Amino acid sequence: MASSKPGNTLPLTRDSVSAARALIQPHIHDTPVLTNTTLTNLASTPQSADALKGTQWEGKAPAKPRFRLFFKCENFQRIGAFKVRGAFHATMRLTEQEGLEEALALAARTFSIPAHIVMPSISTPSKISGTRAQNATLHFSGSTSAEREAVVADVIKNTGATLIPPYDDPNIILGQGTMALEIQEQVEKLLEANNGKLDAVIAPCGGGGMLSGIAVALKDTGIRVFGAEPSFQGADDARRGVQAGSRVESVKTLTIADGLRTPLGHHNWGIVSDPTFVQGLYAVTEQNIKDAMMLVLERMKCFVEPSAVVGLATVLYNEDFRNMVQREAGEEGWNVGVVFSGGNTTIEAITKIFAGVADETAERQEGVLGSDGARVAENVAG
Amino acid sequence: MASSKPGNTLPLTRDSVSAARALIQPHIHDTPVLTNTTLTNLASTPQSADALKGTQWEGKAPAKPRFRLFFKCENFQRIGAFKVRGAFHATMRLTEQEGLEEALALAARTFSIPAHIVMPSISTPSKISGTRAQNATLHFSGSTSAEREAVVADVIKNTGATLIPPYDDPNIILGQGTMALEIQEQVEKLLEANNGKLDAVIAPCGGGGMLSGIAVALKDTGIRVFGAEPSFQGADDARRGVQAGSRVESVKTLTIADGLRTPLGHHNWGIVSDPTFVQGLYAVTEQNIKDAMMLVLERMKCFVEPSAVVGLATVLYNEDFRNMVQREAGEEGWNVGVVFSGGNTTIEAITKIFAGVADETAERQEGVLGSDGARVAENVAG
Repeated sequence: MASSKPGNTLPLTRDSVSAARALIQPHIHDTPVLTNTTLTNLASTPQSADALKGTQWEGKAPAKPRFRLFFKCENFQRIGAFKVRGAFHATMRLTEQEGLEEALALAARTFSIPAHIVMPSISTPSKISGTRAQNATLHFSGSTSAEREAVVADVIKNTGATLIPPYDDPNIILGQGTMALEIQEQVEKLLEANNGKLDAVIAPCGGGGMLSGIAVALKDTGIRVFGAEPSFQGADDARRGVQAGSRVESVKTLTIADGLRTPLGHHNWGIVSDPTFVQGLYAVTEQNIKDAMMLVLERMKCFVEPSAVVGLATVLYNEDFRNMVQREAGEEGWNVGVVFSGGNTTIEAITKIFAGVADETAERQEGVLGSDGARVAENVAG
Repeated sequence: MASSKPGNTLPLTRDSVSAARALIQPHIHDTPVLTNTTLTNLASTPQSADALKGTQWEGKAPAKPRFRLFFKCENFQRIGAFKVRGAFHATMRLTEQEGLEEALALAARTFSIPAHIVMPSISTPSKISGTRAQNATLHFSGSTSAEREAVVADVIKNTGATLIPPYDDPNIILGQGTMALEIQEQVEKLLEANNGKLDAVIAPCGGGGMLSGIAVALKDTGIRVFGAEPSFQGADDARRGVQAGSRVESVKTLTIADGLRTPLGHHNWGIVSDPTFVQGLYAVTEQNIKDAMMLVLERMKCFVEPSAVVGLATVLYNEDFRNMVQREAGEEGWNVGVVFSGGNTTIEAITKIFAGVADETAERQEGVLGSDGARVAENVAG
């Protein structure tokens, strides 16, 4: 697959995102924006001193930010994730350039372009089988950028294919950014009775294509854009890079947020590290991710993958973010769009992630049920 | 809590359901109707001969029905299930009768009426803690009707409360029926470009309040209504009762569809057994329920409880139902509303339900990954 020669690439502006949207709209879902009273209330309640024990905020007064949360559910997107936006956009720009006839199915398959996909061999089985199901040829690599790029070079040499990087590409960025136009419209519609507006969007940051696209789409609108990353084994490369003033080029992490294991791409670094595009980057722990994921599944009844909830985890548990919102938003609070990037996980994977939960919960239950007396306990045992 | 003295009960008609809807609408969500290409295609594909092995349809030609499925997502309803409809309706009729002032929160709590809830002690922990969270007083009973009614009699004697049965009550039935008006409107709106209409609705049947309400709402509209039950340990009491010509009064089952363990109530029997209201009842196995649940979670990205998917399981796996649809709907196929009744389960419960899945899948994966050679296997191991 070919891509993004300079002549074929629109500038990285909101207008280009609008053009991308017009192009891909027939092929993607306008995913819903959902609200949830429980989660909005939880986010607007200070964390307990206990919850902060063992964190860098131990002993400090918990922040008291106020939120109204709006969840952009890209887990309901085609193929179960936002990525179809960028893939369609890059593929459709390619077909325009190369004069291929348009067809009607999914991305490369839609346009009958043979696709060679290079992915780390540690990719989740659901991602591997999902990609295979779209008739793509898979090539496996190691998990570092260097290893991946070596395999890519091989594939290009052997097949004559042209590269579309998964996230570090202007057409991909513009495609992903289309979701931000939807979020803004959808939230403003929900708030139109009160003349309310969207104050901020927080989205997961892995390779940074989605976060960059959102930032490009919302630049100069007054809507702030924040990125969220896992901290596990240095997966918060964007945050660390911005702090140090130079891009972190290699990351090796096995965070449960498996979609966020890659470091920021080159193009994306330029956007994500520019505070006129992205106003802040925050990191959360594996436990924060698990806790947020459990809330989304059990309370919101939405099936999401771990990577999808790092934005919500930041809103709920990162005191730096929460203090900033308290300071900036004051009593009024903020209307925040929280991006759920995808839902491509399996019951099997969830079972593994929450292994150990069963035991803890069983204990808790015994306590609850025991308080109703022996007869209850008997019935439970029976 | 008091209820449904004859003078306070509307007749069981579509008009009464409309009146109920007007009354409760400010307090409930208009839940979304979702579509899903994968599930619609799967339902419209004949089962394999292999899939029928070991079932009562072994060796028979698989049915070839055609469906377009529309999922009514009551898992996104307040409290995570349809039941809030009937509860609000019964409580609001009660406040009208007794002249209590209306308030604004949840059901009994909304109207500051002390609530005593009798439930079997084998109820799921999430149901118990969810009910407690609404400030109700809980009373536990055994799991048969007789045991439950004994505890109810005790509570009434000790507290002076009046009974609102959970499902066998005209006001409850009318409240649950409101969802059918929504489904009809929502599907017709989705199909309006093609002048399409809703052909049938299939819903889970436990105590039968929801199925009765739907049947009352859709009577004489030309939209067929079907009920779905688990077959495990005789949980398909409605189906068996209709076949035998008399209500099955007691059921003792531990089907994973824990919301459907109760037998049909008296009022509900009158409706569910009347073929001018309900045109058929079908049963599915525990494995059918698990398979359907996995599809809804992993493919539709909706978090549902086992009871919620027995309708979909019937559409996908019950050859009696599928043959009937092939016969009645022909080439054209049917637009079918499939009710997902609720999503009140936990990750812990799901882990238990799918215990064993992890092993099977791990085996499958090894096969997949192995075919990519030793290097892949190494990387997976690392």
